[in-house]
Amino acid sequence: MQAVSLPRRAVAVRAEGGVNPEIRKAEEKVVDSVVVAELSKPVTAYCRCWRSGTFPLCDGSHMKHNKATGDNVGPLLLKK
Amino acid sequence: MQAVSLPRRAVAVRAEGGVNPEIRKAEEKVVDSVVVAELSKPVTAYCRCWRSGTFPLCDGSHMKHNKATGDNVGPLLLKK
Repeated sequence: MQAVSLPRRAVAVRAEGGVNPEIRKAEEKVVDSVVVAELSKPVTAYCRCWRSGTFPLCDGSHMKHNKATGDNVGPLLLKK
Repeated sequence: MQAVSLPRRAVAVRAEGGVNPEIRKAEEKVVDSVVVAELSKPVTAYCRCWRSGTFPLCDGSHMKHNKATGDNVGPLLLKK
């Protein structure tokens, strides 16, 4: 049996997409530092969904992101 | 001019994908807490790429992720 050459569709699907669509894209790698001795509140939430308008802090945007995509991401809570 | 009905392709593309493909998917929302007084090292890196094998800690997996996808994510560094 010979191989049959089928026409190819011009549809490219990446196996995995990026995590951060918008934040500080001019930076090669977005790294943030927290000096924990300077935390003022009992609990401070840091963003891990990359959708926060107050990044690197959490503003609750993971809720909209999770609802829209079926994802289950949430913040990192720093506790004094 | 009349509308022409073209055949539809069975290709679904989501406008935006999830951030976390694998970590603790049984949980509705993955939230982690750090009691900063208990940090032992001068610097501790926490994962924000959702690819770490030591999540919630960073294991450097963002480097492979960034290279594979063109993304620019990096960890949150907690400094004593």
